[in-house]
Amino acid sequence: MQLHGRSLIAGQRASASAAQRLQFHAINPAEGVRLEPAFYEATAGDIEQAVDAAAQAQDNLVTVTPQVRGRFLREIAWAIESLGEELIQRCRAETGLPEARLAGERKRTVNQLVMFAELVEEGSWVDARIDLGRPQRSPVPKPDLRRMLMPIGPIAVFGASNFPLAFSVAGGDTASALAAGNPVIVKAHPCHPGTSELVGEAIRHAAAQAALPPGVFSLLQGAGTHVGTGLVTHPGLRAVGFTGSQRAGLALYTAAAARPTPIPVYAEMGSTNPLFILPGALQSSSAELAAGLAESATLGVGQFCTQPGVVFVLKCPEREPWIEKAGAAIQSRPWGVMLSAQIAEAYETAVSQLEEIDGVNRVSTAGHSPSAPEHRESDGAETTAAVTGRPRAYVTDFKTYVSAPALQAEVFGPSTVFVRVENAHEMLAAARSVEGQLTATIHASTDELREQHALRIALERSAGRVVYNGFPTGVEVCPSMQHGGPYPAATYSQFTSVGSAAILRFARPVCFQNAPEQVLPPALQNANPRNLLRLIDGNPTRTAVTAADP
Amino acid sequence: MQLHGRSLIAGQRASASAAQRLQFHAINPAEGVRLEPAFYEATAGDIEQAVDAAAQAQDNLVTVTPQVRGRFLREIAWAIESLGEELIQRCRAETGLPEARLAGERKRTVNQLVMFAELVEEGSWVDARIDLGRPQRSPVPKPDLRRMLMPIGPIAVFGASNFPLAFSVAGGDTASALAAGNPVIVKAHPCHPGTSELVGEAIRHAAAQAALPPGVFSLLQGAGTHVGTGLVTHPGLRAVGFTGSQRAGLALYTAAAARPTPIPVYAEMGSTNPLFILPGALQSSSAELAAGLAESATLGVGQFCTQPGVVFVLKCPEREPWIEKAGAAIQSRPWGVMLSAQIAEAYETAVSQLEEIDGVNRVSTAGHSPSAPEHRESDGAETTAAVTGRPRAYVTDFKTYVSAPALQAEVFGPSTVFVRVENAHEMLAAARSVEGQLTATIHASTDELREQHALRIALERSAGRVVYNGFPTGVEVCPSMQHGGPYPAATYSQFTSVGSAAILRFARPVCFQNAPEQVLPPALQNANPRNLLRLIDGNPTRTAVTAADP
Repeated sequence: MQLHGRSLIAGQRASASAAQRLQFHAINPAEGVRLEPAFYEATAGDIEQAVDAAAQAQDNLVTVTPQVRGRFLREIAWAIESLGEELIQRCRAETGLPEARLAGERKRTVNQLVMFAELVEEGSWVDARIDLGRPQRSPVPKPDLRRMLMPIGPIAVFGASNFPLAFSVAGGDTASALAAGNPVIVKAHPCHPGTSELVGEAIRHAAAQAALPPGVFSLLQGAGTHVGTGLVTHPGLRAVGFTGSQRAGLALYTAAAARPTPIPVYAEMGSTNPLFILPGALQSSSAELAAGLAESATLGVGQFCTQPGVVFVLKCPEREPWIEKAGAAIQSRPWGVMLSAQIAEAYETAVSQLEEIDGVNRVSTAGHSPSAPEHRESDGAETTAAVTGRPRAYVTDFKTYVSAPALQAEVFGPSTVFVRVENAHEMLAAARSVEGQLTATIHASTDELREQHALRIALERSAGRVVYNGFPTGVEVCPSMQHGGPYPAATYSQFTSVGSAAILRFARPVCFQNAPEQVLPPALQNANPRNLLRLIDGNPTRTAVTAADP
Repeated sequence: MQLHGRSLIAGQRASASAAQRLQFHAINPAEGVRLEPAFYEATAGDIEQAVDAAAQAQDNLVTVTPQVRGRFLREIAWAIESLGEELIQRCRAETGLPEARLAGERKRTVNQLVMFAELVEEGSWVDARIDLGRPQRSPVPKPDLRRMLMPIGPIAVFGASNFPLAFSVAGGDTASALAAGNPVIVKAHPCHPGTSELVGEAIRHAAAQAALPPGVFSLLQGAGTHVGTGLVTHPGLRAVGFTGSQRAGLALYTAAAARPTPIPVYAEMGSTNPLFILPGALQSSSAELAAGLAESATLGVGQFCTQPGVVFVLKCPEREPWIEKAGAAIQSRPWGVMLSAQIAEAYETAVSQLEEIDGVNRVSTAGHSPSAPEHRESDGAETTAAVTGRPRAYVTDFKTYVSAPALQAEVFGPSTVFVRVENAHEMLAAARSVEGQLTATIHASTDELREQHALRIALERSAGRVVYNGFPTGVEVCPSMQHGGPYPAATYSQFTSVGSAAILRFARPVCFQNAPEQVLPPALQNANPRNLLRLIDGNPTRTAVTAADP
């Protein structure tokens, strides 16, 4: 397919002449070269058109059967798979991510779409609740009340740089928003506009296959901030899904909160994902722990929201040799091409700031094989220093950690700081000092875990996911996943951006009072034609209602 | 019980000397007289102490059994009932609300507490989900993931003026926040500080009975805005529950969004609760409709969040006589004592603004018995003009309605505006023009309902609750209730402030990855000792897990 470089507005390519629009190009980060074609920045008029079309499409999405919504999601999955090698190659060129990783990410993206299709086809996610009326109740009759989750309205989704497929145009935010029955307008990430266009065309095709109005989906291209700001402040949007930096997420959150009609921005903004290492773990599995940490910390050149950036290690005889071993293991891992020159530069700036802090030192690699710029992950393509991320390991003490905000902030890239903790009291203080986290991980023996009750409670309080004797990277897409956490990991800790519960961000309950059977949605009808698990007078059941007095 | 006028900080009366504190008094709105004793405004130091105590208490609330939480809620209910006549009389003096209404509201408050006790004792509300690990899965092992809702942290609750019991110190916000396992700090509404103190002492007593640390609850008194602002901006608070005016709710929302660590303010801010009347309803039940509307519009002197403030009436031969009949019925209802002089004054200002709009007229009461200041609801107590709310009915056309923001805004008091709508197209435009609503009501024949598909969709989109051939006042407390709606009815349309689902505002999911059985909360343990309905590998069941590889 020849890339056209245009935004997709409700199935149509944006039509304004090129002369009126700003242009930008994707850059191949491995080669430092501009990729063709030029992409055309969406205009305020494009936003207007996309929102208008979404508003017109939403009635349709509310009233079609869940089977149609499910088919739409499955059609998207098939269309993405049909893009084949073309998608992988364009994506690899735009992101520097290796083919195997991209093939895996595509699989996750496709599986995610199918998971949401199955969820809406089964249907019980709408949390249908029925409280039967009691017209004879005294002193006042009890009305018949029935409640279910319904679509919240048009959603803006911001593609993430680090997951060009799974958290981007047809990623978890889009899949869950569409599954809930909402039109979606995606702002493509400017690092991978070609990948975005390919996937956007796949969604356009899928909407047509499912006979849905084209306004259910639009894709806006743009390298500046005005497209995003224009979307988030548009009165026609009802919620926003975002994955990216804390700075950008907070800017969108603040803009949305200041609207005349505020809307939620569900921003997942990463975290430092601290590990807490107790002596038992070092005594029993020191080598595996060092190797596992090095792999997790440098996976994808450290460009994961769940990258372990801080490791608190409790004092014990094994501590110093282990920090040296683990630090060396990290620093011996191959350098890799980062997603963009900007990200690589930000990484260098961040680690320079760490190195300037008194009391922070690089972990010595004496006696270990040195890290080497000639080791590369990017399928052998030539890389330039500017976009290459070099794994780094630092060591400091807890006193320095708590007094230096730079140590507490996320470094986006393969950097990990070991923090020496001197006693159990300080360990607990460390757990209580960390900001909101996507994940917190504890490595300990079973006995230690039992004893460390307060530590576990502290981690459950600060994180969305608590990992036991494992590593935080690798986010399973399933009903039990929680990818989110207290601020600044996410703006709303009550929700997840990964897993089937992500759909709850884009729905709201509507209650029907004394509605005649024929105007009720199928989910709330007496006969329970969709065979949903419903809460009837407080009891979960799939049985039909046989109401004498409906 | 002798009222002491002090804030209650974690079981203790605020100790600073009276000289250092601002004082205020409750006013009896029916008599216009100051009530003793003086109440002492909470200080910044009190807020600090209350938040510190809450932080210390929260670990305890997380780890106690649900039975202890349930007992705490039941003890509160018993302690409130034990206050007997003293509570009713003080409340009546502070609010002007009649005894029968207050007795009913107390019953609702007590029932609400018991409902949340039952909810946490049964326990399935935590939405436990288990995805079993598959260590042999290729290419990567699947971890064991288990997720449940856990307390979000210390909550600030703002008492509402119009429900001095059910939406105040031990109202739905407090009950649901405590049920979820969070400490609560209540800012008492300055209109009923004595009622607040009595109920606050009941909660203090209940915490002691349940052997919970006193920091689980504090009550702060204050007539100015600094106590509320101090609470909402305190870094130790995690969420806020509020019921009141749009102005105050938005101020808290904005302050919370601007914190270094933003938190949600669940504000329920009322609405105009429009009715949509189709000809079939007027043809079949014109008289009942007029009488029912008049009762709903003037109930509690119109001081309900769900008071029907706007009535769109589609053109038909019955329309003009019906508007006259219904308008007269409203204006013939007794005048009543409003909650405070301020509220009565704001009501007069708001109706004056309506009267100044070109094209808005009072509904004629010629031929009907005139409304009369000598009819009163307040148990015969003498009332002054300043605090008496007089029912009013206005009529206008749709063109005037859409062009006048004052007509679209909530008037807090017994005022209802009839809007003449000329055709079905205009009716749909009306439904689409209204802002977010707690409720929208449709009166129509069954045939009309079937035909008015687009109208119904529009109402489901703008309201939290859609009422069929009924009236919006009277909010049932049950699992299916939805009390909330798109902004400005509420700040978060995804949540309700009434009914058992209100608990979801104050909880967040935490996921445990590969956690050993002995550190898992009972809700997630293999044996399912609490017999919860759980989602295991996507399937709802109460059966235990027999995992070969936990």
